[in-house]
Amino acid sequence: MSRLNATHDPNLQSWVESANQPDTDFPIQNLPFGVMRSPNSNEPSRIGVAIGDQILDLSLCYKAGLLQQLPENLQIACAAPNLTQIMMMGSEATSLLRNHISQLLRRNEQPQEAQATLISMSDVDLLLPTTIGDYTDFYASIFHATNVGKLFRPDNPLLPNYKYVPIAYHGRASSIVPSNTAIARPQGQIKKPQASAPSFEFTQMLDYELEVGFFIGSGNELGQPIHLDKAEEHIFGLCLVNDWSARDIQAWEYQPLGPFLAKSFATTISPWVVTLEALAPFRCSALERAENDPAPLPYLSSSLNTEIGGIDIKVEVLLRSAQMRAVGMTPFRLSCGSFKQMYWTVAQMLAHHTSNGCNLRSGDLLASGTVSGPEKDSQGCLLEITQRGTQLVQLPTGEMRSFLCDGDEIILRGYCEKQGHVRIGFGECRGTILNAVKNSIFTP
Amino acid sequence: MSRLNATHDPNLQSWVESANQPDTDFPIQNLPFGVMRSPNSNEPSRIGVAIGDQILDLSLCYKAGLLQQLPENLQIACAAPNLTQIMMMGSEATSLLRNHISQLLRRNEQPQEAQATLISMSDVDLLLPTTIGDYTDFYASIFHATNVGKLFRPDNPLLPNYKYVPIAYHGRASSIVPSNTAIARPQGQIKKPQASAPSFEFTQMLDYELEVGFFIGSGNELGQPIHLDKAEEHIFGLCLVNDWSARDIQAWEYQPLGPFLAKSFATTISPWVVTLEALAPFRCSALERAENDPAPLPYLSSSLNTEIGGIDIKVEVLLRSAQMRAVGMTPFRLSCGSFKQMYWTVAQMLAHHTSNGCNLRSGDLLASGTVSGPEKDSQGCLLEITQRGTQLVQLPTGEMRSFLCDGDEIILRGYCEKQGHVRIGFGECRGTILNAVKNSIFTP
Repeated sequence: MSRLNATHDPNLQSWVESANQPDTDFPIQNLPFGVMRSPNSNEPSRIGVAIGDQILDLSLCYKAGLLQQLPENLQIACAAPNLTQIMMMGSEATSLLRNHISQLLRRNEQPQEAQATLISMSDVDLLLPTTIGDYTDFYASIFHATNVGKLFRPDNPLLPNYKYVPIAYHGRASSIVPSNTAIARPQGQIKKPQASAPSFEFTQMLDYELEVGFFIGSGNELGQPIHLDKAEEHIFGLCLVNDWSARDIQAWEYQPLGPFLAKSFATTISPWVVTLEALAPFRCSALERAENDPAPLPYLSSSLNTEIGGIDIKVEVLLRSAQMRAVGMTPFRLSCGSFKQMYWTVAQMLAHHTSNGCNLRSGDLLASGTVSGPEKDSQGCLLEITQRGTQLVQLPTGEMRSFLCDGDEIILRGYCEKQGHVRIGFGECRGTILNAVKNSIFTP
Repeated sequence: MSRLNATHDPNLQSWVESANQPDTDFPIQNLPFGVMRSPNSNEPSRIGVAIGDQILDLSLCYKAGLLQQLPENLQIACAAPNLTQIMMMGSEATSLLRNHISQLLRRNEQPQEAQATLISMSDVDLLLPTTIGDYTDFYASIFHATNVGKLFRPDNPLLPNYKYVPIAYHGRASSIVPSNTAIARPQGQIKKPQASAPSFEFTQMLDYELEVGFFIGSGNELGQPIHLDKAEEHIFGLCLVNDWSARDIQAWEYQPLGPFLAKSFATTISPWVVTLEALAPFRCSALERAENDPAPLPYLSSSLNTEIGGIDIKVEVLLRSAQMRAVGMTPFRLSCGSFKQMYWTVAQMLAHHTSNGCNLRSGDLLASGTVSGPEKDSQGCLLEITQRGTQLVQLPTGEMRSFLCDGDEIILRGYCEKQGHVRIGFGECRGTILNAVKNSIFTP
């Protein structure tokens, strides 16, 4: 676990004035990493660090000699086209780099060359942070698992393995897209309740899932499990994940091998990777288990994990329909909750993942599964909120929603707040559903 | 579908004499692609083509100017460290290259420089053919699905979606290893029938799965499905796959999201990728559906697919225990079957995979799932053969097997034979189970 250090000092201010505003996601205490490129350009992508409404371009910092105090291989990694090299160097290197950047950006310490290494966030496209080798999606909210289970098995919502096994499935890495990528409504096999056979058509039950993801920093060799208390050393940082889901396709295809095409058409991630170090002030105990719950098996149990394995990240989902957009309405909040409500911590997920010897590689993405809390307004997907489409949500325009309509934009937000600390934000994860233009391959 | 051309002529012979032996897997009519490196060297890997017991080193061919008749980008791709670039160029480029190599290797046409581009297969390590982005595993044998289903649901072995949906799950790409990599017996959560809670221990039900895999050549853009009759244009070639499985871990973890750690500890693939073009003489009709089976939905149905969507690849599994090895016994055959017995063709699997718009990338691996036929001796895993460990297999040494023991080696073989054509082989896919040395992380 990262300890508090000088980079967390709430009194730090930056010479980038927008970073000193109380409502910014990106104060100098945050310093999340991302990858950017000028719009419509063919130039290589570059690594940047968000600061207020600006980005510190690490590639330009390297060229300007502003990183010379760092080890040479770390300097070179800062000029790479994505974060993979930095991730590979592990958590100590990331900490060293973050500390150096904090100093570069501090008020009164502005290097002469530094202003020229800033780029306005609105002037670039934000891309995927790294080449994602494998993507694994967990199911770590017991509230989500119970709510979903109730819809299918009212008498027995939670399966017997849930409280022992951090349940997960392998997701599709190729279709992970950065925020602001339009999402095409997928077609698939759908079996309607009264139909004798399935038909192939556009999903009518398109849903989002609010999740928190984490990127692997240094990996492990095949056959070498990672101990629970070492797990966080292998985590580079966190982002928001929208695991788009077609519930009607899912219901028909998922047995016996789990979700496949219902999920693989797209997964959206937020562009900024917030390091575990930046989140150090917001660590909390793991979710307390109910009195009758079994203790985790020893490989998933440690006092460190119990005491500060949780992270109190407030997460919320907003929707803006095409009609709302047309009349200039602000997005409507569908839910808000906290990542501290997860049944399994990030360290438990990672330790479980490697417990059979499975190797994780730098840049792999693990996601938590839908973040739902115990309250009705903290449910992280429409399947739960609308009870499988039976209890409609009313938007401020009077429009009703069971699932997502064409033109709907989903916005995920995440942030940490705590007395005595500066607010740390994740930025946004956005995606809009494209009009369902029928594909000529499948329709006459 | 590839048509027969001059490379398939059964009268062709090579100046590499071992390629003209009737029992070779690699006659001049085959020409599978692979990637190799000298043992214990740090030199870059190189692309090779198997010919008899030799390998034509394409990197050396490039340097010797033997590829000059090919387009320049294809020449350069031949000098790459793996097959990704060639795969990206698509099926026409592969065909052009294969035809050129066929000419280089024909008897009476031996270029002076060619002998120096040969390397003995026994002198190199064979590696993974490409960087595998995503790995998807299907469940395309109805005999396997029925046999496995019977063990868990005797009254209702086949789920209602099976005959409509080419069922699949995302596998783990990071733990795919080349043939001859030792396999560590994994630990995991196991819930014994009489136990009130699971325990964390070494699997006692370690199994193999005999599968056929296929690599993606040219990919598709996100949101752009591939039509069934175009699907094979996106397939570079086929290999053998052993999807190692821990049945006791699988039984406890797999609901509701499918297999995860029960499979992700290792998947072994054979080193040589046999192109679809090489397999053209062995195409056959897709498996005939039973009278009462539903027709596939239109997006999975075409006369081309019905008529020649199948491939008659004979596949077999052999086991050699440590004791058999010690006394010099040859491996014992556990089963033999044919890939033509699959309920879904490779084109149907690929078309289904992209039907929701999911993008496939060059080098992605899709595998068929366990290849089992209708006969008892054509079942492709021990779960079926031993009826979940209840009907033991006796080895020639008198040893009995329910599942795999430490020291057991599993060997997959595949080959095509047909009157009037030269035998085409896949080579072998081998893996030996390591002794279960307890990992200090998890045991006192």
